[in-house]
Amino acid sequence: MNRSLSLPTADRHQPALSLSVIFAPIQTELAQVERQLFNWAKASSPALRDIARQTVSRPGKLIRPGLFLLITGYFGYDNKDKIKIAATIEAIHSASLIHDDIIDSSALRRGQATAFKAFGPEFSLLFGDYLFIKSIGRALEFKNNKIAEILAEASGQMIEGEIEELAQSFNLELTEKAYFKIIGKKTASLFQASCRLASELAGTPAEIKSELETYGFNLGLVFQIVDDLLDLKGETRETGKSRFSDLREGRITLPLIRAIKTWPEEQKKKVAGWLKRRHGEWPEPVVSFNDFLLELETGGALGSSLKTAEKLAERAKACLAKLEASPYQESLIKLTEFVLKREK
Amino acid sequence: MNRSLSLPTADRHQPALSLSVIFAPIQTELAQVERQLFNWAKASSPALRDIARQTVSRPGKLIRPGLFLLITGYFGYDNKDKIKIAATIEAIHSASLIHDDIIDSSALRRGQATAFKAFGPEFSLLFGDYLFIKSIGRALEFKNNKIAEILAEASGQMIEGEIEELAQSFNLELTEKAYFKIIGKKTASLFQASCRLASELAGTPAEIKSELETYGFNLGLVFQIVDDLLDLKGETRETGKSRFSDLREGRITLPLIRAIKTWPEEQKKKVAGWLKRRHGEWPEPVVSFNDFLLELETGGALGSSLKTAEKLAERAKACLAKLEASPYQESLIKLTEFVLKREK
Repeated sequence: MNRSLSLPTADRHQPALSLSVIFAPIQTELAQVERQLFNWAKASSPALRDIARQTVSRPGKLIRPGLFLLITGYFGYDNKDKIKIAATIEAIHSASLIHDDIIDSSALRRGQATAFKAFGPEFSLLFGDYLFIKSIGRALEFKNNKIAEILAEASGQMIEGEIEELAQSFNLELTEKAYFKIIGKKTASLFQASCRLASELAGTPAEIKSELETYGFNLGLVFQIVDDLLDLKGETRETGKSRFSDLREGRITLPLIRAIKTWPEEQKKKVAGWLKRRHGEWPEPVVSFNDFLLELETGGALGSSLKTAEKLAERAKACLAKLEASPYQESLIKLTEFVLKREK
Repeated sequence: MNRSLSLPTADRHQPALSLSVIFAPIQTELAQVERQLFNWAKASSPALRDIARQTVSRPGKLIRPGLFLLITGYFGYDNKDKIKIAATIEAIHSASLIHDDIIDSSALRRGQATAFKAFGPEFSLLFGDYLFIKSIGRALEFKNNKIAEILAEASGQMIEGEIEELAQSFNLELTEKAYFKIIGKKTASLFQASCRLASELAGTPAEIKSELETYGFNLGLVFQIVDDLLDLKGETRETGKSRFSDLREGRITLPLIRAIKTWPEEQKKKVAGWLKRRHGEWPEPVVSFNDFLLELETGGALGSSLKTAEKLAERAKACLAKLEASPYQESLIKLTEFVLKREK
């Protein structure tokens, strides 16, 4: 690793890897996924069309459908349903983001107004429901029962993870074990499910299938830890999201857990006091964000969290060892690096 | 019909039919459904247990699972999955109520604090998601694919209906046709699906199946129109819900549509003005609720809406003509009367 979160801004603008290069082997399919999502949005009832265009048909990085397509591509699996399944994965991810943004009162996502901001909480709530249910409904249209089962299970896990996270808000005693259980459910489960779906359809041998699932799961953990770090260090103009939303919502992320461990009791109490002024103004007069970040940085909490992400990324890559060399396998390896080093 | 909404209060407290009498043939099964819902709540992860107990394991009238069990009972269909399917239907209904209560900021349901009131909007939102997804996930566990398909489709319809209703809030030009389309989706679809599921499992001949679905659909329409009337005329201590929530949320219900038609332009403008003060205080000083109700009543809008409900109830009953006389068939007939005459 030749970069740390404290590199100067100039350096951070030269990303080592671009997603369009990584996704080159599945470029055509991903374009079809985007078209599919757009068409679903267009076909919605008039009351839904605008909100659908604002959300589903403005896809993000498409990492989850990308994973699915890289693995089906590797195994040479081809089927007309492939694009629809990939789009369904992304639609489930969108549904979950739409509800997340309500919970966090987030105004900004992917550099645009969120559905919550543009259409209000009532509409966003119902549209998230609609996307969740419609996605599982679509999955039921495929002949293979397993598709709906895997997607319903992953969706349930995601929601459980969110609920457990919410229940632990502002809990400065949250353990790393509990944190990993939460992010495993809320984030890694859909990464894992994308890999499982691909293996399932391609009829992959059990041994490889299990390795690919572990790859997806670890990749999801890396994704979430980097997300936690970006919330602290990322620039809004890069990430397209509001900064410090985790702190504002009282979400206890890995860097915070590591920092808290090193704090004397008095410090803990002070921070607990700030955090609990929930949904209020961040108490800048008491301590500036910069001082707080500096402390996380000099105390080593940011660096050690990144180290953990690096280790998990290595573990993910190791799961690919049994795959044969191919452009798809190479992309899966590079995707690990991208997820680790991404700045948005 | 020997009662109208303007009967004196004393009379209204002597209901012609009790649900426990109507549901007598399926009493044991309904108790098992309640136990199933309670056990699901108990088995939830610790973060969910309290909210689950407050919602799913405090079931309401159980009309939808009741419908399902009466019809499977009529056909002599018995299977160990029957109770689970009935409980899943009720869980989907609960999920939808939990999200409704967030949208309406409702504090009261079934005479108790709503999940929204007791656990806040974030928790309720996620728990509603959890219930929806878990219910479809459970439906996938049954061997018959049709179960999940029917439930996912009905859930999608319910949400679409809610979205269309929300999009039409405060629209005094809403037509009856559009109103019936909305309530058909948001309410009647799950009634219909409960009947369809029962016929599907019992292997009912297509002709009877279609009659039973039409029965369920019309029963659902009656249920919703009576709900609209109860929101205007019901006593909170009877209904267990806040009164006038439709007006507060700008929901244009059947009595209002009928009244608006008879109003001069000036009156329309005045009422539009009140309605649009959304989420604010009801403008009591401008017009009292009682005057408003009196007008709906003397203008005939309440009476004519009840007449429409009566006609639909007759239509529902007519669909049962092809069933043979049996305690189950008798209960289905009586259920129509109950739904029409209910006061909560």
